[in-house]
Amino acid sequence: MSEPVSSSPDITALGERADTMIRTLGSISAEPNRLVRSFLTPEHRAAADLIAKWMRAAKLDVSEDALGTVRGHWPGGSKKRLLIGSHIDTVIEGGLFDGPLGVIAGILAAEHFALAGRKLNFGLDVLAFGDEEGVRFPRTLASSMACAGIFDADRLDITDSDGITLRDAIVRYGKNPADIAAAAYTPDVAAAFVEVHIEQGPVLEYKNQPLGVVTSIAGQSYLNVEFIGEAGHAGTVPMMLRRDALAGSAEVILLAEKLARETKGEVVATVGLVRIPAAASNVIPGNVALIVDIRSGSDQARRRFVDHLKAEIRAVADRRELGLTMTQTRDVATTPCDPALQEAMTNAVRAGGGEPLLLASGAGHDGTAMARLCPIAMMFVRCRGGVSHNPAEYASPSDMGHAVAALIRFIENAKL
Amino acid sequence: MSEPVSSSPDITALGERADTMIRTLGSISAEPNRLVRSFLTPEHRAAADLIAKWMRAAKLDVSEDALGTVRGHWPGGSKKRLLIGSHIDTVIEGGLFDGPLGVIAGILAAEHFALAGRKLNFGLDVLAFGDEEGVRFPRTLASSMACAGIFDADRLDITDSDGITLRDAIVRYGKNPADIAAAAYTPDVAAAFVEVHIEQGPVLEYKNQPLGVVTSIAGQSYLNVEFIGEAGHAGTVPMMLRRDALAGSAEVILLAEKLARETKGEVVATVGLVRIPAAASNVIPGNVALIVDIRSGSDQARRRFVDHLKAEIRAVADRRELGLTMTQTRDVATTPCDPALQEAMTNAVRAGGGEPLLLASGAGHDGTAMARLCPIAMMFVRCRGGVSHNPAEYASPSDMGHAVAALIRFIENAKL
Repeated sequence: MSEPVSSSPDITALGERADTMIRTLGSISAEPNRLVRSFLTPEHRAAADLIAKWMRAAKLDVSEDALGTVRGHWPGGSKKRLLIGSHIDTVIEGGLFDGPLGVIAGILAAEHFALAGRKLNFGLDVLAFGDEEGVRFPRTLASSMACAGIFDADRLDITDSDGITLRDAIVRYGKNPADIAAAAYTPDVAAAFVEVHIEQGPVLEYKNQPLGVVTSIAGQSYLNVEFIGEAGHAGTVPMMLRRDALAGSAEVILLAEKLARETKGEVVATVGLVRIPAAASNVIPGNVALIVDIRSGSDQARRRFVDHLKAEIRAVADRRELGLTMTQTRDVATTPCDPALQEAMTNAVRAGGGEPLLLASGAGHDGTAMARLCPIAMMFVRCRGGVSHNPAEYASPSDMGHAVAALIRFIENAKL
Repeated sequence: MSEPVSSSPDITALGERADTMIRTLGSISAEPNRLVRSFLTPEHRAAADLIAKWMRAAKLDVSEDALGTVRGHWPGGSKKRLLIGSHIDTVIEGGLFDGPLGVIAGILAAEHFALAGRKLNFGLDVLAFGDEEGVRFPRTLASSMACAGIFDADRLDITDSDGITLRDAIVRYGKNPADIAAAAYTPDVAAAFVEVHIEQGPVLEYKNQPLGVVTSIAGQSYLNVEFIGEAGHAGTVPMMLRRDALAGSAEVILLAEKLARETKGEVVATVGLVRIPAAASNVIPGNVALIVDIRSGSDQARRRFVDHLKAEIRAVADRRELGLTMTQTRDVATTPCDPALQEAMTNAVRAGGGEPLLLASGAGHDGTAMARLCPIAMMFVRCRGGVSHNPAEYASPSDMGHAVAALIRFIENAKL
């Protein structure tokens, strides 16, 4: 019952509505002067209620699952559904756009069909997840894992910083942990998952493009490196007799940068944390620990990089006569986006006059969980300065309008 | 009335006495499980009393000045005096030898003459200073500055961490700040100052020599460096678009090391402190501050080094497009040891069968103040592993015995 390609949504109006909705949602915070909205809190409740109100206004059938994920359903001509969603939780002192843009884009796109009474060959489910940022509990993506049917019951025992278990938090939120299994979509229903999200990086801005199509959600490794040298007096130990753990660490920082640059965009590597126990300006550091964060859209490239870096770090330790411990504390595989959906998303963006940039997502997303259920696709929206997780986060109404219009075209033309 | 060179002190016995005295003095601490002895505290009082008892047993005339410096005097044939001393205060969790060795070596050397009734052409004053480590108050060397006649009365207003002024601390110690001026030696009396001290570095051990003669007390510069780059998400910002303040800092750490190595021992440079505000393993550091500690026996070499390093750091900031602030927060000139006294000390060590190593002191000492009054000399004693300011600090009884014997020979042959 799908109608022919005919929509020409008003991009300016869509962008302004998205902007207004994002700012309204962004006023719901645990703190007056910064945006803090965590999983299964009163702010989560208030945000979910607002989302539900908007969904009902868009003529969607609203429900909530056991983890508080709000679902707005527009029935289609088959049991198949296209899932569209993102998250409404935030980091501490977060921005307005990271997460909410994807939920609101989904509502506006579904509304386009629902208010016009346009039935498609498949249903639409707009999903507002509540646990993407991982701020409250030490593990994240509980909401999307439940939808994907991969929620592990062990997780109910994890606790937040107040000692409250996830199980208790669910109960206090008015839900029943026994209902989590029922939150799972079955693969015959979930035909695909699509998410619109700000890029959280500077590439689209740098390339002067409003929209991008994601090729994969990057895999990630953490390499924890600790050097043990010999502490000493900054004035009395000659340079040639030093075993300076910080100088060795400086080599690692620059090696990670150099090797990542040599991959020409395939791998990024970052040292953001360096610990110097008993640091003093007049003491040669005897012990330094650091973490190298390594990400790539290619698991092979990432693992090759880690092996290469480890070998180079060993050479540094040997040359400097430093003790060395290396442990890999994270090894998350890449989540590829579905090639056919990437192409469909590319066409949908291009039909709006844009030349979509294909790029890997360096940040993690709910799609990592949803990809265990069904094919996924992601659209990225340019954000100013690449800034995210920060009150300065910003996407323009115009770019958001283009994103919603492209999502509408994607839905209209989807072959599910 | 000086007698001919004839002494052959029992090195083993002197070393064992020094060791016993050091361990006895080391039992006087503010805390049961680590050595903490600060300026003008009850522990200072107890240590000074023990030093005074030893001095009296050595037939020295004992007095105390307004800053609690204990003086043991053995009269000579003229008003000239050779001052011999070091300090009895410690760092927090200090070692037994840093300071006390010099005071005890002075007592044992003076005793050698006093107990035998041997008058020299000059008097001997053994000095036990109480404020070398600078732990209690923000400025240090009050004791030796008072003896050198360069104590600045403004200093009486500085406060310790409890808000007690130096003035009040002196009064509570039972002394009168008005008497500080009287602590000063006059240049016609103070013919020279000599100090025995553990090396606090590894060079003597590395060169397999028990004793060294100090050529100068190194000058010191602190160069505070702050880079302002751009914070960003470790997964989403491509390597080529980063302005990573930590990567710039890593270059500075390695530059300081490389340039110091190139001076072939003339300059040492150390980065011991790196601050990354808002550090997180998944955030590209946008702001990093560090301090480069630069020391040299040559002020010219040190200043040339600072200029060279600053130029290289500016080049790093330019290449990486980082904001840069550099401030020089310390610029202490080198204190040279007197050439004639160095030679006399060298001869005294050599006469004991050793081949003294000439070396600059990278650490500061009371000699920095005393050099404003009179020529100074320092003898260094090998310490295990170069370790100091640490409970593991250790000098062997044999090395200490050789040091006291060399000090005795130095006194016997001194031309003052």
